[in-house]
Amino acid sequence: MKNNILKVKKSAKAAALLSNDEKNSLLKEMHHVLGTHTEKILEANQKDMENGKSKHLKASMMDRLLLTPERIKSMQDSLSQIIELHDPIGEITEDYRVDSGIQIQKKRIPIGVILMIYEARPNVAVEAASLCIKSGNPIILRGGSDAIHSNMAIANCWDIALQKCNLNTSMVYVVENTDRKVLDDMLLWDDCIDLVIPRGGEGLIRYVVNNSRIPVIQHYKGLCHLYIDDEANFEMGLNLLINGKVSRPGVCNALETLLVHKGIAKEFLPLVQQRLLAKQVIIKGCNKTGAILKGIQPASEDDFSTEYLDLMINIKVVNSLDEAILHIDNFGSHHTEVIVTENLQNAERFINNVDAAVVMVNASSRFSDGGELGLGAEIGISTSKVHSYGPMGLKALTTEKFIVKGTGQVRS
Amino acid sequence: MKNNILKVKKSAKAAALLSNDEKNSLLKEMHHVLGTHTEKILEANQKDMENGKSKHLKASMMDRLLLTPERIKSMQDSLSQIIELHDPIGEITEDYRVDSGIQIQKKRIPIGVILMIYEARPNVAVEAASLCIKSGNPIILRGGSDAIHSNMAIANCWDIALQKCNLNTSMVYVVENTDRKVLDDMLLWDDCIDLVIPRGGEGLIRYVVNNSRIPVIQHYKGLCHLYIDDEANFEMGLNLLINGKVSRPGVCNALETLLVHKGIAKEFLPLVQQRLLAKQVIIKGCNKTGAILKGIQPASEDDFSTEYLDLMINIKVVNSLDEAILHIDNFGSHHTEVIVTENLQNAERFINNVDAAVVMVNASSRFSDGGELGLGAEIGISTSKVHSYGPMGLKALTTEKFIVKGTGQVRS
Repeated sequence: MKNNILKVKKSAKAAALLSNDEKNSLLKEMHHVLGTHTEKILEANQKDMENGKSKHLKASMMDRLLLTPERIKSMQDSLSQIIELHDPIGEITEDYRVDSGIQIQKKRIPIGVILMIYEARPNVAVEAASLCIKSGNPIILRGGSDAIHSNMAIANCWDIALQKCNLNTSMVYVVENTDRKVLDDMLLWDDCIDLVIPRGGEGLIRYVVNNSRIPVIQHYKGLCHLYIDDEANFEMGLNLLINGKVSRPGVCNALETLLVHKGIAKEFLPLVQQRLLAKQVIIKGCNKTGAILKGIQPASEDDFSTEYLDLMINIKVVNSLDEAILHIDNFGSHHTEVIVTENLQNAERFINNVDAAVVMVNASSRFSDGGELGLGAEIGISTSKVHSYGPMGLKALTTEKFIVKGTGQVRS
Repeated sequence: MKNNILKVKKSAKAAALLSNDEKNSLLKEMHHVLGTHTEKILEANQKDMENGKSKHLKASMMDRLLLTPERIKSMQDSLSQIIELHDPIGEITEDYRVDSGIQIQKKRIPIGVILMIYEARPNVAVEAASLCIKSGNPIILRGGSDAIHSNMAIANCWDIALQKCNLNTSMVYVVENTDRKVLDDMLLWDDCIDLVIPRGGEGLIRYVVNNSRIPVIQHYKGLCHLYIDDEANFEMGLNLLINGKVSRPGVCNALETLLVHKGIAKEFLPLVQQRLLAKQVIIKGCNKTGAILKGIQPASEDDFSTEYLDLMINIKVVNSLDEAILHIDNFGSHHTEVIVTENLQNAERFINNVDAAVVMVNASSRFSDGGELGLGAEIGISTSKVHSYGPMGLKALTTEKFIVKGTGQVRS
């Protein structure tokens, strides 16, 4: 195993030196191979689906696992999108001269070997790998055992595409052995893996953070709040609430808690209840909310800490903007926080005082996504501030080296 | 202990919101307090020096530990320099609009709580802390037990300066208990510490990396090479060699190995020997070097892997630029690598193919330092590519958050 990973590491220099054209040719080839191998991938996926059935996997898990011709087409579409993205590698980001006379440049380079750890979705083996390739980084894909046949079928496509382009097949390496022990070993190999990106439930991510010697991009959960200021446009607030809570409740940028300024609570909360009930959303509320709305459940501290990922929401009435910020300090996940207000000063105060990767004014939390924020695509999201904060696109898969050019200068 | 660290974490928001003027006022106050407390600091340092003597610390360690009025003056000077630096916090680094109509900005913010782990030098308690303050980050200083009296005396100065400025004294926290167990605990508290920066020997840094759940800035060693191309200016090569090896052999940007193209070895190496011997530098060489130079020691694989930090150097004759790059791949430390050449293509090939944080053409490796590279000052150096690569100035102590401004847009 270590030998295979060392081969990936050895491929890093060639990957870093690929031109944008060479990288795009590979991605185009992969697009083609996915087309010619659709049947084989679907057959492999069928095995995973049958195993999943006999293991009684949850319906949501089975849905994530399932591949169809449309879903393979959608993988191809993501390849086409990534081909169109600007290649960040080689960019000179700074260029200046200092008193000693030396010229200093900073140049964007790849990070190196990325280990992607994920659960059931086989499309990660196409999409995450394409982003790594486009940014010059070899990738190790370690998916869950439930998707192993699908993943290996996609790995085979990468092999074919890499060979066709005369490239080292180690640049995309899919781990066949999904034993936890193998993962544990890899997490200690900081001599040949540069960054670990886990995608999945909080348990998986905490396990990786607690057991890795390699830097890890962390994103435990998305517990996002919508705060309705006393100077908010009601209709806008209701629209953002429904879009944030209902449009896709199972994702990390969905809303979990609504905070409402006491000055508007009596007038606004009945409208909230009406709109939420029409969408079958279950409401849990603080005491003050309970005094205004009938028939809702009480919200506990635990509820305010829970990422429901479901048609359920907490409501809390706050005395002030600062109390809303304090609540977010205590219960937020540093992911995405939204204020609705027409008051610019309140908006600024929220922006500056809320400690989250994405802070929004009068926009839906559902925009907190690499694609929607103009990054083109996203490899993951970081809720810790080291290396990257928030949705990570191609640039987050790079770093910068110093280049110094002199004419014989020495340091005195 | 955990309570104290939680207090530091709680001070992070106020630290992040300080204006440049407020931060500079604090640094000016600290400058003043260091002046009025010079005697007290020197008395405390005297205790450390006496303990050091009775523990028979090495002379080099005792020198690092020693404080004098001049060294305290030099701490004050570093405060003055940091006051002059541009405050990176609050800068809008990107600002664009996407098709959905929302406006997206990226804004520079502090990282949060920095844990600085270091060994004997008490000046770190002033200089690292000032850089963290200037970039809006609270700092925990955990120095070695040998310097504990000096560190606590400086901690007292920070307390006085922070109080004078009506700031939370937890923004600079010096750990009094230097037991390893306390350090081990802190390295697991990723709920209240955001980044760990260890400074010291490779053993300390590996220990921190292996035991930390918090992201760590790594810099194991500086094993820097100087490669003399067959199209090099000899006099320039000799000057860079002597400056790189002799001007301060005990630092990480000093040279450890000289690589010489075979085409010029016979002519160049005797000049090298003459200049090195005049500076009492011991030479170890490969077989080809031994065939040209008399009276030198043979260099083993171990030698090529050793950071001497002393007046000793390895010499290897290589067949080509690519063999020089390969040698650096095998033995380099991703710190600083230098080529001397008049051939632009060779320079470009070296720049693009050498995997180091700082790659230089015709300049001394001794310039690989935050101050010399125009960063103003340096908190440390990273030889891993995550978050930052190379010398780290104020900007490396920051990250960027997304700010989204809309007019009620929802995601379709």
